[in-house]
Amino acid sequence: MPDRFPADGVVERVTIWEVGARDGLQNEQSIVPLEVKAEFLRRLAEAGLTTLEATSFVHPDWVPQLADAEQLLAGIDRHDGVRYPVLVPNERGLDRALASGVTHIAVFASATEEFARRNLNSDLTGQFEMFAPVVERARAAGLDVRGYLSMCFGDPWEGGVAPEQVADVAARLRELGCSQLSLGDTIGVATPGHVERVLAAVSARGVPVDAVAVHFHDTYGQALANTLAALRAGVSTVDASAGGLGGCPYAASATGNLATEDLVWMLDGLGVEHGVDLDKLVATSLWMAEQLGRPAPSRVVRALGG
Amino acid sequence: MPDRFPADGVVERVTIWEVGARDGLQNEQSIVPLEVKAEFLRRLAEAGLTTLEATSFVHPDWVPQLADAEQLLAGIDRHDGVRYPVLVPNERGLDRALASGVTHIAVFASATEEFARRNLNSDLTGQFEMFAPVVERARAAGLDVRGYLSMCFGDPWEGGVAPEQVADVAARLRELGCSQLSLGDTIGVATPGHVERVLAAVSARGVPVDAVAVHFHDTYGQALANTLAALRAGVSTVDASAGGLGGCPYAASATGNLATEDLVWMLDGLGVEHGVDLDKLVATSLWMAEQLGRPAPSRVVRALGG
Repeated sequence: MPDRFPADGVVERVTIWEVGARDGLQNEQSIVPLEVKAEFLRRLAEAGLTTLEATSFVHPDWVPQLADAEQLLAGIDRHDGVRYPVLVPNERGLDRALASGVTHIAVFASATEEFARRNLNSDLTGQFEMFAPVVERARAAGLDVRGYLSMCFGDPWEGGVAPEQVADVAARLRELGCSQLSLGDTIGVATPGHVERVLAAVSARGVPVDAVAVHFHDTYGQALANTLAALRAGVSTVDASAGGLGGCPYAASATGNLATEDLVWMLDGLGVEHGVDLDKLVATSLWMAEQLGRPAPSRVVRALGG
Repeated sequence: MPDRFPADGVVERVTIWEVGARDGLQNEQSIVPLEVKAEFLRRLAEAGLTTLEATSFVHPDWVPQLADAEQLLAGIDRHDGVRYPVLVPNERGLDRALASGVTHIAVFASATEEFARRNLNSDLTGQFEMFAPVVERARAAGLDVRGYLSMCFGDPWEGGVAPEQVADVAARLRELGCSQLSLGDTIGVATPGHVERVLAAVSARGVPVDAVAVHFHDTYGQALANTLAALRAGVSTVDASAGGLGGCPYAASATGNLATEDLVWMLDGLGVEHGVDLDKLVATSLWMAEQLGRPAPSRVVRALGG
């Protein structure tokens, strides 16, 4: 653990939204056994993570890896104070989530026209009509709904994305009933000034900073510097993936999600509370790397696990 | 190249002190041929880097990889506006540097007692007596002298290092005649608040920020976030290694120097001038990785070179 040196202007406490079990595993080619997934979630909870995105109710044909969502949710050993959100793409997914007794869901929106077309078979405004009944029914059933916004900092087909467009999508998802918006740098191209600019635009559209999370990819090595910029802007929920598992199939390299361990190292150094036991987390990622048959991308895992 | 979004409070221009040819190669086990080293330097200069630390005049028994320092310096194709500093450990090394027509040298000091004992066979104060005649004679001969300070943020034997101790060593090296001090996080444990704290301590000891450089290692993934903190504190010289070559043999993993490409990506995004052509630099690191027979650690190189 690093020495503790608080920095001015950084939030005091951060909630880590752990996406390893869903975002981390969804692009794995070989199917991870159900019991390994359950054990992964159990270990993550024991390491002190309190938000574990568990799986996704997308159609099994799209993401075969997560076709066991019902069985996984039925079998996991739920820890007190831990929430297990699941991704829900549409009303059919919501039906499955409700039948599984889920309390937190997330919808996956796009900040750009082209990604909305390719990923949602819709368009930038059409997606709100798609999500409206999902969010409405989920809220009516007492569920909490997060909205993911992908391609907030660049799109592989469109190139640059206007911060005001991101802010507009964020505000509209919030109006639909999303309690939190996770701004995703899906292809990893953001830099710290860009992060500040997008957060300012979102704030100017009336979305409070405590309803905003950030989701950075480390494709170009920028994820932690971008996180620092977000923490200074008041963001207190950060998405990360244990061991750095996963990534975006549309990004230029296999390097993907910000590693939870690298984030925890920085937060420990900054004296920001997060509740995670780094040693237990590293042990979990080393164990998971063994299951997957290759080393974790996280620098901290490699340094401490060697 | 990322979209350009300047951030408040960041310097406008940065000098990249490229250490790949010296710090990057010195720990390579198999000897890199002289002509490959010369070609590496030529390509780095053509990519727009203006400070190329070329080699070291340490005793060949210590660093066999750099035993060809004289031949390399005699043979390199010097570019206008590019300086080729060399590391000089003692007066014998200075004699060799002077005989080679060098104009810029660097001495390698320690911020801690234990590393001074192990690396210099001296102690924290004794090292100044060691370096005094080297710096004095170099200055008298018209050479510019940089001082490296290693272990500024932590020491593998001592643990924590007081920022005031770092500041004291920096101030004393400056009094000896070093024009610039490079503060090294040799084992990669620093975090952004720690960087701010050390820079403030150095400044409080009367060392101007434009005489300070930073040298971060990416052992725990913190190098770029730490660099961002340094840029906000006014530092305008950043050490980096093309492709992320090299590292510290005392650090916990093989992950070492901040990769020049990852730094350039962030600087491009922040709109900070640096003069480097990213594509040419990536091509150089890909070429060097081929010579060394393994991929470059740099995330940008992996993303753009794939």
